[in-house]
Amino acid sequence: MDKLRVGVLGATGLVGQRFVHLLSRHPWFRLEYLAASLGSAGRRYEDVVSWYMGSELDDRLKGFILGNASDPASVPRDLDVVFSALPSSVAMDVEVPLARNGFLVVSNASPMRLERDVPLLNPEVNYEHIKALELQARLRGWRGGLIKNPNCSTAILTLSLAPLRKYCLREVIVTTLQAISGAGLRGVNAYSIVDNVIPYIEREEFKLREETRKILGRLSSDGVEPGDVRVSATTARVPVLDGHMESVHVRLERAFDVGEVLDELKAFSSLPQELGLPTAPKRPIVVMLDRDRPQPRLDRYVEGGMAVAVGRVEAAESLPGRWLKYVVLGHNTVRGAAGTAVLIAELYFKMEGMV
Amino acid sequence: MDKLRVGVLGATGLVGQRFVHLLSRHPWFRLEYLAASLGSAGRRYEDVVSWYMGSELDDRLKGFILGNASDPASVPRDLDVVFSALPSSVAMDVEVPLARNGFLVVSNASPMRLERDVPLLNPEVNYEHIKALELQARLRGWRGGLIKNPNCSTAILTLSLAPLRKYCLREVIVTTLQAISGAGLRGVNAYSIVDNVIPYIEREEFKLREETRKILGRLSSDGVEPGDVRVSATTARVPVLDGHMESVHVRLERAFDVGEVLDELKAFSSLPQELGLPTAPKRPIVVMLDRDRPQPRLDRYVEGGMAVAVGRVEAAESLPGRWLKYVVLGHNTVRGAAGTAVLIAELYFKMEGMV
Amino acid sequence: MDKLRVGVLGATGLVGQRFVHLLSRHPWFRLEYLAASLGSAGRRYEDVVSWYMGSELDDRLKGFILGNASDPASVPRDLDVVFSALPSSVAMDVEVPLARNGFLVVSNASPMRLERDVPLLNPEVNYEHIKALELQARLRGWRGGLIKNPNCSTAILTLSLAPLRKYCLREVIVTTLQAISGAGLRGVNAYSIVDNVIPYIEREEFKLREETRKILGRLSSDGVEPGDVRVSATTARVPVLDGHMESVHVRLERAFDVGEVLDELKAFSSLPQELGLPTAPKRPIVVMLDRDRPQPRLDRYVEGGMAVAVGRVEAAESLPGRWLKYVVLGHNTVRGAAGTAVLIAELYFKMEGMV
Amino acid sequence: MDKLRVGVLGATGLVGQRFVHLLSRHPWFRLEYLAASLGSAGRRYEDVVSWYMGSELDDRLKGFILGNASDPASVPRDLDVVFSALPSSVAMDVEVPLARNGFLVVSNASPMRLERDVPLLNPEVNYEHIKALELQARLRGWRGGLIKNPNCSTAILTLSLAPLRKYCLREVIVTTLQAISGAGLRGVNAYSIVDNVIPYIEREEFKLREETRKILGRLSSDGVEPGDVRVSATTARVPVLDGHMESVHVRLERAFDVGEVLDELKAFSSLPQELGLPTAPKRPIVVMLDRDRPQPRLDRYVEGGMAVAVGRVEAAESLPGRWLKYVVLGHNTVRGAAGTAVLIAELYFKMEGMV
Repeated sequence: MDKLRVGVLGATGLVGQRFVHLLSRHPWFRLEYLAASLGSAGRRYEDVVSWYMGSELDDRLKGFILGNASDPASVPRDLDVVFSALPSSVAMDVEVPLARNGFLVVSNASPMRLERDVPLLNPEVNYEHIKALELQARLRGWRGGLIKNPNCSTAILTLSLAPLRKYCLREVIVTTLQAISGAGLRGVNAYSIVDNVIPYIEREEFKLREETRKILGRLSSDGVEPGDVRVSATTARVPVLDGHMESVHVRLERAFDVGEVLDELKAFSSLPQELGLPTAPKRPIVVMLDRDRPQPRLDRYVEGGMAVAVGRVEAAESLPGRWLKYVVLGHNTVRGAAGTAVLIAELYFKMEGMV
Repeated sequence: MDKLRVGVLGATGLVGQRFVHLLSRHPWFRLEYLAASLGSAGRRYEDVVSWYMGSELDDRLKGFILGNASDPASVPRDLDVVFSALPSSVAMDVEVPLARNGFLVVSNASPMRLERDVPLLNPEVNYEHIKALELQARLRGWRGGLIKNPNCSTAILTLSLAPLRKYCLREVIVTTLQAISGAGLRGVNAYSIVDNVIPYIEREEFKLREETRKILGRLSSDGVEPGDVRVSATTARVPVLDGHMESVHVRLERAFDVGEVLDELKAFSSLPQELGLPTAPKRPIVVMLDRDRPQPRLDRYVEGGMAVAVGRVEAAESLPGRWLKYVVLGHNTVRGAAGTAVLIAELYFKMEGMV
Repeated sequence: MDKLRVGVLGATGLVGQRFVHLLSRHPWFRLEYLAASLGSAGRRYEDVVSWYMGSELDDRLKGFILGNASDPASVPRDLDVVFSALPSSVAMDVEVPLARNGFLVVSNASPMRLERDVPLLNPEVNYEHIKALELQARLRGWRGGLIKNPNCSTAILTLSLAPLRKYCLREVIVTTLQAISGAGLRGVNAYSIVDNVIPYIEREEFKLREETRKILGRLSSDGVEPGDVRVSATTARVPVLDGHMESVHVRLERAFDVGEVLDELKAFSSLPQELGLPTAPKRPIVVMLDRDRPQPRLDRYVEGGMAVAVGRVEAAESLPGRWLKYVVLGHNTVRGAAGTAVLIAELYFKMEGMV
Repeated sequence: MDKLRVGVLGATGLVGQRFVHLLSRHPWFRLEYLAASLGSAGRRYEDVVSWYMGSELDDRLKGFILGNASDPASVPRDLDVVFSALPSSVAMDVEVPLARNGFLVVSNASPMRLERDVPLLNPEVNYEHIKALELQARLRGWRGGLIKNPNCSTAILTLSLAPLRKYCLREVIVTTLQAISGAGLRGVNAYSIVDNVIPYIEREEFKLREETRKILGRLSSDGVEPGDVRVSATTARVPVLDGHMESVHVRLERAFDVGEVLDELKAFSSLPQELGLPTAPKRPIVVMLDRDRPQPRLDRYVEGGMAVAVGRVEAAESLPGRWLKYVVLGHNTVRGAAGTAVLIAELYFKMEGMV
């Protein structure tokens, strides 16, 4: 088949680079367009980007001339999907016109994530919400569509919660230990974080609370209705390069056995695995039994960064009620951002029969 | 007055050095004896210690000839108090004979912390438990006494919980982000922790659960009876030199108002403050209103490291029930170890009328 | 005496904060004016600054209303000295008008450091260059004066070289390991430096080469003539918060004995010590004999950060010629910036008989 | 062909793990034997090792039963080569009996590296020294042979110097910034290195000086005669996980042009490349023109960690004489240890016609 043509807006930041990295070797997609801020537009990609993706930048991409990401009119008409790693401040002004004018936009930017008709997808968890695109088209009259991937820490949390839904999720109390890259290339000053922890990340606790509810919610004819789960989060930045760790206590309505829970986690699989989507991890949840795992530096790339690693699974027996506790780790710019967006696009085209 | 004569067992480790540092300039106490492991015994202190306490090592102490910390018989008879920073593996074999033979031992070592007749003191929180020494003398026939300070993360947690007791503590769910120094000088390999988090600290979750219950318990004629509070903890090591941070959710029985809680925390004061003990912090709890505080590097030395810093105090409104959430930070080798032990000794001698 | 009235331009950055910290408790100087960039002007100091100086910000200073540092006209006329921590890009446009109009400006900014009539002072090394102010007044017709302190790594290097001048300095080959704070609060992104070294610092090698020559030069009627010493430097950024380390090989013309060199270094003292200037370190050079010292974290605050620590002093016997090798460490924002500027001002007023 | 049978002594440390990692997927070699210290002997490899090599440990190797590395008699007779990552303290007592009894031993341990009849090989630089094995056999009567790879920082330095020999090397002044892993898994305590630099590594400066001379020396009938090059080194430990950086000044006898030098470095290739040895890097020296490269985190795996990255190549024009300066970076456990040892073995078997 001919590859689908894709573009990336905001291609020079850490999430943008991750998109480029994942897409530069993709079996279905072919990168055709990269855009960045006005100041970088018109320059060669390799001259602008501080490339942090490990292996060397692909030769073909080095010479890409950057488009202006804040101008929706400059996006080539023939792209099959536009991935957005735009900053929140400009995302809506670009993504909405694109979707209105017929583009499929899969976006990592936070604005509009909570709109009822905008699918907020963590594919293994709530792939069925993709059908909210129909409502979106009807309500807004857009010829294209806008799909969001979740906030990084929410993507990781909800994937770990997915198999626990059978025990009926009630309360989730979570403390996150988030990596520097979650704030982008220039988001954290070195002087502020070496030998330190910063116990605050702007808007992150709100996102964990509300996005989790939406992802674990139900699609109705009125769009996505948030689920019942109640999340309280404390979010902290730690001196780690990549990989968000989350310490979770979750109260379950139904009785559980820890051994069974471990089996459920290990066995968890969903539509992306069934469809054999290229970016879908074989095991979405990798269970670790060593008591000192998962660790960000050692485990952030399990399944290429698309799985979450879960460890320290125990019943919190000192508490009244049925509390399970565990630690989950995921790669924040892969599973928590670009990787999930790519997986969403794969799901879309597969369901549309285009691949 | 003549200063009281004190000694430190295990004087070369990080807690031992902290003892030496605090005691070398103490208004009531005079260091007379330092002991370390057999291999170091007989050598000069400055030749053995890797001094990490910031200011230069006191000249008088440089030339101290180290005793053998594993031999209780070598401790000079005329010491008024022996501080123990011994490793768990040898602590009992040394501390018990000393207490039996008439020494007052104030110990940072974990063994025997949960014995009903061994006071486990965090002075501002449960100074009255010191009276368990009477039971101890009666039950064990010891001529001296043994008092324990709590585990580092427990000392910090319970100090922050103390003023909340009026709202009746029910469940505490805590995730700790603990500093490297908590494991001692050689406890964490650099290769394992740079760019990493290790979500496991041996025995730490047990200590947080059980020591908190004892400290918040009640003294009866049978010794200390653990309180009702139920703690579930996840403990992690982060790449921070000093200062344990703890992310706390606590369910309170009684209704609370966050503004009032903040006032209670700020106003908290206890017997050590009333007695004007030299090591007692003026404000045991320092409340921080900046949303990104406390931070270990910036705040670990509030009140000389003897206070805890509390920030991000909020009602966890998304949860059913009355949950309060906050972040607390304390210096693990000061408030969490040597500083509290010194404060305990001050309390003892003051109550005995010896100072 | 009445204290001299001082102001700080660029008071919110790391060097600016260091000025504020040193001046807030100074016996001769009283802070009367703080200024920052236009965006911060008119706001309270404590609302703008991210205070990193350890102890709490002085109450009196918290409420200072910031002036506009880029407008020389807004500096109060009655200041006895203006300290400048302005960025290079704006420094000249502010400092020159101030000096012209009668202010004494002591500046940490790099522009004009190499002008022959601008004293570039490292007081213990070349205090006599202060007399270039006379030439400056004559040549430029300024009613005030402009004095520069050296670049951070140069201040540290030249202080260590000062006592070696008696052996006649020929070549200096130096590799620096510089701290994050040398680039200012936002100068180094955390993502770029954790688990990393960056072997390049813009303009730093040039500064080490040329400023060293000027500082070690001679004052003539035509201004300062650079000395003969030839420096080749490689400068690197390392993941250290504060404290620049420099690995030095220096070829000396005259024969030397390492024991004697050690004695020279230890005994080194100069006019600031003789005059008893308040910020002058008792020992400008602290010699360390332990083979693994100096270390930035342990030694950056020797003598309050105003001394340099020298260790690993050896003859490089494998090389032909008389090469001495050693490691020197200094606090880059104290000795390497604000502290030296304050010392310069002290020297000035003392020599003027104003204190 | 049948694969050659290989074993690793000291298989659980960081260099040992690197051997296992490189050999577990080797086209010519098949791992048949792993040994560790007495305490681990008899246990399964996966139960003993703290695996830090990134990808998961090979299933076949997990179950290997560890031999006792300090007992040469327990090494299986049919191994074609024994790689040694033994600690210095025990290396000779094991390696000598093995070589005497017919084994080919390729060792990373430092003892005997300077013996005239023991090849100290950095294959691209001095492959011809392998012929010293004949002298070794004659002098010592060994039926096998012992070859050493250089100390980590020396391997990196000498590879970068190799193409400069045509300009005639005179003096080398080098400062190293060495990674934590160079000291092994437990060699550096986290508390000593976070936010710090330690300017001393035991015996490292001696090794750089003497091993460089031997590697750049000449093989005669009496063994290897050290070359004329004179090295003076200062070695420091920095908070970097892997990858040693070295800041080099080298004086060359012959005139050079920097552009030509860059071409020489880029074009450098040697016998391992010619023979197509599997572990030989295509480009042994990767030249980087960006002024802030090489950087350990970004560049330590160039050519799989077998090349060195050279940057900041300049003439040190401020110095009299012909000094070239540059920065070189290499992976200390690959090029600096296990990788070079494997390359040596490949060279040996190729030259013997066994592959």
